[in-house]
Amino acid sequence: MEVKILTKENLENETIKSKIAALFRQLSPNKQQVDLNEVLDAANCIVLSTCFIDGEVVGIASMANYKVISGNKGWIEDVVVDENYRGKGIGRKLVEKLLAVAQERAYTEVLLFTEAHRNQAIHLYESMGFRKRESSIYVLKR
Amino acid sequence: MEVKILTKENLENETIKSKIAALFRQLSPNKQQVDLNEVLDAANCIVLSTCFIDGEVVGIASMANYKVISGNKGWIEDVVVDENYRGKGIGRKLVEKLLAVAQERAYTEVLLFTEAHRNQAIHLYESMGFRKRESSIYVLKR
Repeated sequence: MEVKILTKENLENETIKSKIAALFRQLSPNKQQVDLNEVLDAANCIVLSTCFIDGEVVGIASMANYKVISGNKGWIEDVVVDENYRGKGIGRKLVEKLLAVAQERAYTEVLLFTEAHRNQAIHLYESMGFRKRESSIYVLKR
Repeated sequence: MEVKILTKENLENETIKSKIAALFRQLSPNKQQVDLNEVLDAANCIVLSTCFIDGEVVGIASMANYKVISGNKGWIEDVVVDENYRGKGIGRKLVEKLLAVAQERAYTEVLLFTEAHRNQAIHLYESMGFRKRESSIYVLKR
């Protein structure tokens, strides 16, 4: 098992690209995906942690970064582990990789949101030190 | 009253910088602030909407942007109106300015979070079309 930060160069490998797209469909089958070349564009502040087993992508987790007056923040997004590889600690390793980057770059906080019924994910995040914030998210969709 | 997107050039005016810092202290008196020059750095994807009355900054609202696989997202952060100028619709105008940018740049969603007791803010956001998402935020601080 190898967990690494994916770069744009890695996307020249079309198999990796299509495997990541397929993985994401496990999380959100009907959601339109943003093209990975756009996600990994240098002007877009994203880190994509990726887990490989025997050369195959089996999990991904993204972290976006921005600075506002209130802090230098990271948002963890789109964490997904292949359904055939769950329960092996891959989610934790993916997030640990992101947190190492956050530490290195001195983010003041790392945030994520998850639905209340996702007990396993919540258990994982809490075991890594994340704490629930008493705030609600509001969203405006196009 | 003028609501405009602040650029880095505007920060050469030290009065504007110190007024924004003072405004933000009304929101979070004890929070360490990220320097505005860093916030408005070109490599940091932030839009800062600012309201001026008689040449004075009386309100600010930020929006960060990033693309992940699940969307091209904006996060509204650090919305604050000077306590002497509340109840005049300034918050709405600041956020409308950000939403116009989001529309222009084809963000798929604009998000924000707020504490449950902030009824006025919630009422404002709901009146602008924001809807509460049934997710919880988890945060890991340094």
